[in-house]
Amino acid sequence: MKIDTLAVWHQMLENRDPSALDNLLAEDAVLISPVVHTPQRGKAITGKYLIAAMHVLVNEHFRYVREAGDEQGAILEFETEVDGISVNGVDLIKWNEDGQIYEFKVMVRPLQAVNKVHQKMGEQLMAHNDVVLS
Amino acid sequence: MKIDTLAVWHQMLENRDPSALDNLLAEDAVLISPVVHTPQRGKAITGKYLIAAMHVLVNEHFRYVREAGDEQGAILEFETEVDGISVNGVDLIKWNEDGQIYEFKVMVRPLQAVNKVHQKMGEQLMAHNDVVLS
Repeated sequence: MKIDTLAVWHQMLENRDPSALDNLLAEDAVLISPVVHTPQRGKAITGKYLIAAMHVLVNEHFRYVREAGDEQGAILEFETEVDGISVNGVDLIKWNEDGQIYEFKVMVRPLQAVNKVHQKMGEQLMAHNDVVLS
Repeated sequence: MKIDTLAVWHQMLENRDPSALDNLLAEDAVLISPVVHTPQRGKAITGKYLIAAMHVLVNEHFRYVREAGDEQGAILEFETEVDGISVNGVDLIKWNEDGQIYEFKVMVRPLQAVNKVHQKMGEQLMAHNDVVLS
């Protein structure tokens, strides 16, 4: 049965509950970060990054402000604030015919936000996943 | 008569001819850069930034790889290379009922690309427009 990808995604963020990720991500899912050129490959590491990003970005300031679709999935624009720094970004999401996400790419602006997200994501991944952010 | 905004935009990039910008931009157009938080307001400065961006980004490596639409306009993802650095970015475009662009926002990744684009845009704006990139 095809997942309603965006509905599950929004519900997950609303509930701050990443358990839905297991069913939402394809086995060969790839995470492409705003900071690093090389993609992170595989469902496990993609999930770790998305959970870390949820901790860093999805706070009381977080909101989606735009949603555009194409035949591959959707591009969602968000705004939030981290340590008093305004963060504006996009989630570029692609999903397969089952609705499972196989590529999740994030970009943020301005430069100050890229640096802040880089710092906080590194801390988050180190603290909870023993992953060193390359 | 309503402009076919994306058709005019793509034609302009293909021809490397920014003269179409005059008709394509609304008087109150705003440019929101990948680097700086504060928007640049007005058709004149927005045009200068877009022409500089065209010089910096639209070379033989430049191509659009994704196009997603919403009721406000479109989000276009591009890839290019500047001084040997891979640049991946999005143009978040909003246009009015006449098809004239009133908001043009750009984000790029990875971090190395943000820094490279910042440096090259600064040089380009200084050299050709007497604008100091804030």
